Amino acid sequence: MTTEPVEQKSVNAIRTLSMDAVQAANSGHPGTPMAMAPVAYTLWQNVMKYDAADPIWPNRDRFVLSIGHASMLLYSMLHLTKVKNVTEEYEVTDEPAVSLEAIRNFRQLESKCPGHPEYRWTSGVETTTGPLGQGVATAVGMALSGKWLGATYNRPDYTLFDYNVYAIAGDGCMMEGVSSEAASIAGHLKLSNLCVVYDNNSITIEGNTNLAFTEDVATRFTSYGWNVTRVADANDLAALQHAFDTFKATTDRPTLIIVDSHIAWGAPNKQDTHGAHGAPLGDEEIRLTKKFYGWPEDKSFYVPDEVYTHFEEGMGKRGKASRESWMALFEKYKAQFPEEATQLTLMQKRELPADFDRFLTPFEADSKGIPGRTASGKVLNNLAKAVPWVVGGSADLAPSTMTRLTDDTDFSADNYGGRNLHFGVREHAMASIMNGMALCKLRPFGSGFMVFSDYARPAIRLAALMEIPVVHVFTHDSISVGEDGPTHQPVEHMLSLRAIPGLITFRPADANEIVEMWRFVAQQRRSPVAMALSRQALPTLDRNRFASAAGVVKGAYVLYGEEADAPDVCFFSTGSEVALCIDAAAALEAAGHRVRVVSVPSWELFRRQLENYRDIVLTLKARVRIVVEEGATMGWNELVRNPDAIIGVDSFGESAPMNTLHQKYGFTKENLVNTATAILQQKNSAY
Amino acid sequence: MTTEPVEQKSVNAIRTLSMDAVQAANSGHPGTPMAMAPVAYTLWQNVMKYDAADPIWPNRDRFVLSIGHASMLLYSMLHLTKVKNVTEEYEVTDEPAVSLEAIRNFRQLESKCPGHPEYRWTSGVETTTGPLGQGVATAVGMALSGKWLGATYNRPDYTLFDYNVYAIAGDGCMMEGVSSEAASIAGHLKLSNLCVVYDNNSITIEGNTNLAFTEDVATRFTSYGWNVTRVADANDLAALQHAFDTFKATTDRPTLIIVDSHIAWGAPNKQDTHGAHGAPLGDEEIRLTKKFYGWPEDKSFYVPDEVYTHFEEGMGKRGKASRESWMALFEKYKAQFPEEATQLTLMQKRELPADFDRFLTPFEADSKGIPGRTASGKVLNNLAKAVPWVVGGSADLAPSTMTRLTDDTDFSADNYGGRNLHFGVREHAMASIMNGMALCKLRPFGSGFMVFSDYARPAIRLAALMEIPVVHVFTHDSISVGEDGPTHQPVEHMLSLRAIPGLITFRPADANEIVEMWRFVAQQRRSPVAMALSRQALPTLDRNRFASAAGVVKGAYVLYGEEADAPDVCFFSTGSEVALCIDAAAALEAAGHRVRVVSVPSWELFRRQLENYRDIVLTLKARVRIVVEEGATMGWNELVRNPDAIIGVDSFGESAPMNTLHQKYGFTKENLVNTATAILQQKNSAY
Repeated sequence: MTTEPVEQKSVNAIRTLSMDAVQAANSGHPGTPMAMAPVAYTLWQNVMKYDAADPIWPNRDRFVLSIGHASMLLYSMLHLTKVKNVTEEYEVTDEPAVSLEAIRNFRQLESKCPGHPEYRWTSGVETTTGPLGQGVATAVGMALSGKWLGATYNRPDYTLFDYNVYAIAGDGCMMEGVSSEAASIAGHLKLSNLCVVYDNNSITIEGNTNLAFTEDVATRFTSYGWNVTRVADANDLAALQHAFDTFKATTDRPTLIIVDSHIAWGAPNKQDTHGAHGAPLGDEEIRLTKKFYGWPEDKSFYVPDEVYTHFEEGMGKRGKASRESWMALFEKYKAQFPEEATQLTLMQKRELPADFDRFLTPFEADSKGIPGRTASGKVLNNLAKAVPWVVGGSADLAPSTMTRLTDDTDFSADNYGGRNLHFGVREHAMASIMNGMALCKLRPFGSGFMVFSDYARPAIRLAALMEIPVVHVFTHDSISVGEDGPTHQPVEHMLSLRAIPGLITFRPADANEIVEMWRFVAQQRRSPVAMALSRQALPTLDRNRFASAAGVVKGAYVLYGEEADAPDVCFFSTGSEVALCIDAAAALEAAGHRVRVVSVPSWELFRRQLENYRDIVLTLKARVRIVVEEGATMGWNELVRNPDAIIGVDSFGESAPMNTLHQKYGFTKENLVNTATAILQQKNSAY
Repeated sequence: MTTEPVEQKSVNAIRTLSMDAVQAANSGHPGTPMAMAPVAYTLWQNVMKYDAADPIWPNRDRFVLSIGHASMLLYSMLHLTKVKNVTEEYEVTDEPAVSLEAIRNFRQLESKCPGHPEYRWTSGVETTTGPLGQGVATAVGMALSGKWLGATYNRPDYTLFDYNVYAIAGDGCMMEGVSSEAASIAGHLKLSNLCVVYDNNSITIEGNTNLAFTEDVATRFTSYGWNVTRVADANDLAALQHAFDTFKATTDRPTLIIVDSHIAWGAPNKQDTHGAHGAPLGDEEIRLTKKFYGWPEDKSFYVPDEVYTHFEEGMGKRGKASRESWMALFEKYKAQFPEEATQLTLMQKRELPADFDRFLTPFEADSKGIPGRTASGKVLNNLAKAVPWVVGGSADLAPSTMTRLTDDTDFSADNYGGRNLHFGVREHAMASIMNGMALCKLRPFGSGFMVFSDYARPAIRLAALMEIPVVHVFTHDSISVGEDGPTHQPVEHMLSLRAIPGLITFRPADANEIVEMWRFVAQQRRSPVAMALSRQALPTLDRNRFASAAGVVKGAYVLYGEEADAPDVCFFSTGSEVALCIDAAAALEAAGHRVRVVSVPSWELFRRQLENYRDIVLTLKARVRIVVEEGATMGWNELVRNPDAIIGVDSFGESAPMNTLHQKYGFTKENLVNTATAILQQKNSAY
């Protein structure tokens, strides 16, 4: 057996677990965990404030593995430090988050060690990573949240929040635009609680990084306002410790630590080769590597007891003491600041104050109406008044998206308690940062023009996969944007958002649907939301004449029309086109027809309803059923079950005034009436 | 009238046309054209090599307005310099690209002056802009193309290609990640023919840029390896000229010129305010501004004759001389290098050599088969052998996507003639750069994992809007990716790509469908393509037993089954699931059923077929019709017209070996057979 000191043994335990797991799975990425094991070791054992017995302690330091493919690095740490499993309801159990058995089953169905780290599936995983760059940008959101929590809830002698966020990034993370955007924001906001470690191993999948990446990363991060430091050898534990000490001593900006490393360090034939990036080393190479480490060559998944003990004595004791003193402090805080303490307790379980919706009053009926974005802005402000941890902003479009919290200040380096974020023209980083905020239990919202939801899509998808309650407010939601033309007119975006599993979408029809939407959205604990709001005014319907807007939560409801389930014509519509359908209905009624109008604000919620309800709303016995939506038509046939016509937009839009476009694309009362009448006549003559 | 010299008058003509157009439209962005008019003036009049009489001359300098909202700046230049209109078939006409009438109709339906500049709609617009950052990244693709064209087609004494690319960018462009990615590549590749002018006006929509953007842009670009220079006053024509001279003298790297400007320069009440960004100035402010300019206050859309004359004598004469000497040179080149000249001529019209597909031979039937990505790689290589201007690469995944052109070298700063591009882990920039390449008439391809198509979506959408033939090769196309798990398994991506208007998608079933797909794709002159290819092996079908793969171009075809149009069971499937359907068909046949299998590689192409053909393929009289695709099911109901079942994936995937996932998600022969049998029995008992 080896004579190495226990520090080195612990580092090598991380490495050998990683190698063995990838080999057993015959799939995965061994090289980076082997290279970065000393960094993870130093961080967890000697730097991070983290109690394995409570991996959801609010003031824990966060560890983000932006290089998600190196997942075994994280699983090894979670295992070796004996992090506990947490239930869906945020109860800590006695089970390990990652057992040795789970590591043996790396990348197998239902193992707690999937190919890439998955939040909510494996306790201790702070965010899902794999898509490169996302971890860095999400870490910015976590750091920002830490600053906000500290500014909002700390009191003299009560430093409840001062956690740090550590992210390990690779070349890919450095190349992705989303991390550039986020790093620029982090520097601007002087997030001194953020430390990104850049694994500078000079190897990518296509070969040496100098094939595509020769920029001076240190200078780039300096330009963002970061503190940049270097560690020339990833195996130099003292140098790593010194770098982290420098980070902790830096109070005015984020820190980037560039660590020069060797992929697959210690593998005699594969070190420094891209062959070690994404494939198992092979049994023989593993044997030789273990030999080099002074490790038992014949043992797999072997962890010397002293390694467990070592972590218990280091991180374990330190973390326990930190959390216990925090808990004691929080007990006193509760007594002195009961209201704030209650807020924090609610936040941690993603719950709301009981009267969260006390300011959500209905809008008066108004035929002139109000733009969807404006109504939403008012409702959001009223929600934010009752839920102080609703925090958000816009990608430089707040005056257009109307999301400014008008009673609140700007979040800035001088005012971390502000609730209005200025993300700049950085939609993608905004979405990733929102994810980081939601992971720290804030209730974030972000806003932009709907057409630019495409820029943020990878982060929106991750929110859906993580099941975290971020709220995307997308305004300018159709070709009705008008003059700005096709680059600014969403067409396929509602569809492509509806396509993301788990994302709840809304396209509300008037101000009161917007009230009910927000009431529902606020209560979501595990669902991200994307809402599509109009730029133009929408009449506020008279709910004495029309059905209650509370129907929004059912996804679709009969807004107007007799109880009879077999009208002549039934319109199904969303958003700005609902009012048009009502106009058309009036004209058709004047011509003697019976007409029903169904508002369909949320496909996902409608699909959740009982079949009986859905059948009623779908009005299957109507003689003519017509869908009207300013967007791609795909999917409507299925949702509504074979309507007779869909008036939609399956091409790009054009630059012209809104009314001109409505004429050209058929979004006029006349076209709706004519379409319905023509189909009715056709069906009549068919009898 | 004014006593200003004609230079100043010309600058002010740009400004006043812009103000007047926005005012007439009551919509648009006047401030930036007013600020940047001197830059555009200097570039067009004194710097750019551009002949208005032939705006598609291949060696023209390119002007990219990355700040697309400042479209009136570009329209003014196109009008004042009398750029000619070009037809869809690349014939230059005598009509102006932008008449004064078109400017009067700014942002009105069918005006040549839509809200944002649109390629193919307005001649002289080199690329569609508006979504921020895209212009900069596309300009990188244009510059890269210039280097490639020069290295490939220039000969001693025949410098056919040495054009420069000028892009005007704003704060938003600087903040967007896509331009960061692209700037890093441009520096890495030392694209000295690229000049980006950064309009540093300190104003964004939310207010002052320092709300969100305090990074040191000059240092950042220095870190990318750019030459950075500054002009302290956008109105200083001499300083601008000097900066452009410095750019031209810089032969080893791209240049960023930071120009400090004043939004709405000259507007007495609105200069330097964000109110001048996106709204008309108002009649009175326009009057005051014109007064300040020494312009006739009562005239709108006024252009003094001497301004037209001035541009004719400057840019006009210079551009004409440049192009004429180039044309003369090209005539001699034709004689000496006929083959190269023919290639260039074909390229310009996006045509192919007559025998472009001479190496596209069929694959032998093989039940073991070959992965879709591998087959595609072979076909792409064979296509590239016959079409020398097929150039492309991968976002650091070529060894996985198999897109390397194995007979060719790497494109690098030392070897601009290479045809293999290393984009690094920068999917978004890759897609934008591909757009720039296609706009310079190369035939670009780019590759990555399908799940990361999300990162590139804004640029893919722009390709569709521009109708340019870029080819996106997306591999690892379903949950069959297996162990990498849900972050790497596309589910909704096929659907969301199918949703983009004008994009042609493919999911081919075997190697021979891949051959026919590429044969079709190569011939596309106006359609971008996204192809979804499997990671795992697909059996190569015996086309003596199965229908010819030529059916691919019809989008869907009867692959297997009797002619009878009323089989018991008909499967509709794509990609890797087609072979599964064939297996299931055999089992069902063994049980006495008549079965048909329809391969549906391309929805868009299928929709283009005549109804009669579609009806046959849809096999509407089959007793049981089942769709099988490893992806989101939305849209299939409509395409196939109410199948009895859809076996798809409407949730995220999981990390596990492929076969395990096939069991869990129902992609097994047994499940297909059982599903079909159950529905058959149900229908039987219903009789």
